[in-house]
Amino acid sequence: MAERQKGGSAEVPTPAARAQAGRLAIGIDLGGTNARAAVIDWDGKVLSACKRPLADRAPEAVADLLAVASLEALRQAKRNEAEVVALGVGAAGQIHSGTGVVAVGPNLGWRDVPFAALLGKRLSWPVLLMNDLSAASWGERSVGAGESEADVLLYFVGTGVGSGLILNGRLYEGSGGVAGEVGHTKVVVPGGRLCGCGEHGCLEAYCGGHNLSMRVAEALGQGRESTLARAAAAGPVRAADIEQAALSGDMLARELWDECARLLSVSLANYVTVLNPARVILGGGVLLTCPELRRTLVERTFELALRASRPGLQIVEARLGDDAGVVGSGLRALESVLP
Amino acid sequence: MAERQKGGSAEVPTPAARAQAGRLAIGIDLGGTNARAAVIDWDGKVLSACKRPLADRAPEAVADLLAVASLEALRQAKRNEAEVVALGVGAAGQIHSGTGVVAVGPNLGWRDVPFAALLGKRLSWPVLLMNDLSAASWGERSVGAGESEADVLLYFVGTGVGSGLILNGRLYEGSGGVAGEVGHTKVVVPGGRLCGCGEHGCLEAYCGGHNLSMRVAEALGQGRESTLARAAAAGPVRAADIEQAALSGDMLARELWDECARLLSVSLANYVTVLNPARVILGGGVLLTCPELRRTLVERTFELALRASRPGLQIVEARLGDDAGVVGSGLRALESVLP
Repeated sequence: MAERQKGGSAEVPTPAARAQAGRLAIGIDLGGTNARAAVIDWDGKVLSACKRPLADRAPEAVADLLAVASLEALRQAKRNEAEVVALGVGAAGQIHSGTGVVAVGPNLGWRDVPFAALLGKRLSWPVLLMNDLSAASWGERSVGAGESEADVLLYFVGTGVGSGLILNGRLYEGSGGVAGEVGHTKVVVPGGRLCGCGEHGCLEAYCGGHNLSMRVAEALGQGRESTLARAAAAGPVRAADIEQAALSGDMLARELWDECARLLSVSLANYVTVLNPARVILGGGVLLTCPELRRTLVERTFELALRASRPGLQIVEARLGDDAGVVGSGLRALESVLP
Repeated sequence: MAERQKGGSAEVPTPAARAQAGRLAIGIDLGGTNARAAVIDWDGKVLSACKRPLADRAPEAVADLLAVASLEALRQAKRNEAEVVALGVGAAGQIHSGTGVVAVGPNLGWRDVPFAALLGKRLSWPVLLMNDLSAASWGERSVGAGESEADVLLYFVGTGVGSGLILNGRLYEGSGGVAGEVGHTKVVVPGGRLCGCGEHGCLEAYCGGHNLSMRVAEALGQGRESTLARAAAAGPVRAADIEQAALSGDMLARELWDECARLLSVSLANYVTVLNPARVILGGGVLLTCPELRRTLVERTFELALRASRPGLQIVEARLGDDAGVVGSGLRALESVLP
């Protein structure tokens, strides 16, 4: 814990530093279909937020949109530009924080976009660009379910599967900015299911929300009988529908759910074994809307993880919901300009 | 890379700091059957070393032995006690560096032994206790195959299987001091082979050198035909014997070797996917004496790891051999007393 008192910009500031500062940041969560800009204070409080759909995904157009949304959030909060000291953006994909470049942004179709610079031309604040799950984990760790622990793992199962890492009290992004991509660890080799990333056998190809819907549709298409047919007729089946059907004894749903629980629990247990975190935070729509899957995952992770890693471990639910990304990117941006 | 310039005692010192200091440390590698004490300078150079068998594993007796070996190493180096500023010890097991306690030392049969204090009573230097693979990874990273990269993974397959982690330029030991225990990640669930740790399905139960010997003996005991029978009659079969037999077409050896290569490459690839290190250092007797296994492991790790994690990745062999532990523990001890 003493580690957190040392060193550079990636550390949590002391309460004194927070009180002194009294300034604001803009935090932005940049998704594939929407962007959300919020005004954040030093306590991680969201003073206002402005959500906008992405009509045009061209980098210049997105930068224009984020600039407008930022100023609109500021106006809603009745604060002025001079009170803002920095702006943080969390985006999905491979991000190089140091240079402010989106190396690969799959949801946006971007490659090597110097997005921090594009945004910096439109606004007067320093811009910090980061991965969306890194931002969310920093938010949860700082003012959410992480309780300021030094070693925290955010394990996220939603449409996709991923994670964010706080290690030795600092955000860990890896040498190329792509650490935490647990959704693309291989769980079936050889002969694994094709994943959206183009590889085979990835965890996400089995347990991500989008893939779960596809797997139900595929099974129904192959003539499997299932009570999920009705839900599937109305659109992509949700994870919560599968859990409900599994609990009601539906065979297809039971098979998918048993496999999902097994793969996720081995994955999370092995992650805990190698990193020995004090806290795991479970996030994402699949985990947060499926209590039975979550319960099984927690129980089996404790059974399968290294015995010595279990005593100090807490596995909890994410607390900040949709705010995690804007809070985390905003706080990181504030901390990056701390004198 | 800039991260390495920041922060606390776990960082690599600047060349200037090294030159200024000009002092020495004792580094100790405490194994289950032998202890090795060495005099280490700021460049990680081993000035002398003294190896002693552990006749008695009682903590007080081991502390006595290490004190004697340390002074003997110092005498051999023709240096005096006043030139030594700190002593580091790397030992297998669950170590709490902060408190200097061996929580669990499986090779020594220790539980909750305040070993840094025991040793501190016998010698006048500050004592830093750490995990043996953490020590080895710090040594390799600082003056061996790690080339001072910020994010380095030492992947070790010897009698046992384990790893050491340098992340954000700092040693990462986990919240309970047991990070890196990749040998106890689960690779076969359910119904996995019993591991020495008491759990089932651990990587080490399939690929550790001790388990490989046992698996050959078990197969021969069950009547399997194999050219390994001759080697097995003379004692535990070595990994290099299995590799040689596999290359000569022996069926049992081929099966074991294929499985070993598959399990290790999925394990290492997944480790690379979640941590995105700049460098992986391969160490341990099994990997270092089996070039075919090593070649396959490197090739498949590049195939199976997250695509975005591959471009900057280098996978290299450990360079310091048996010196890694004494160099790493000695350097860490020196750095811990840097003013």
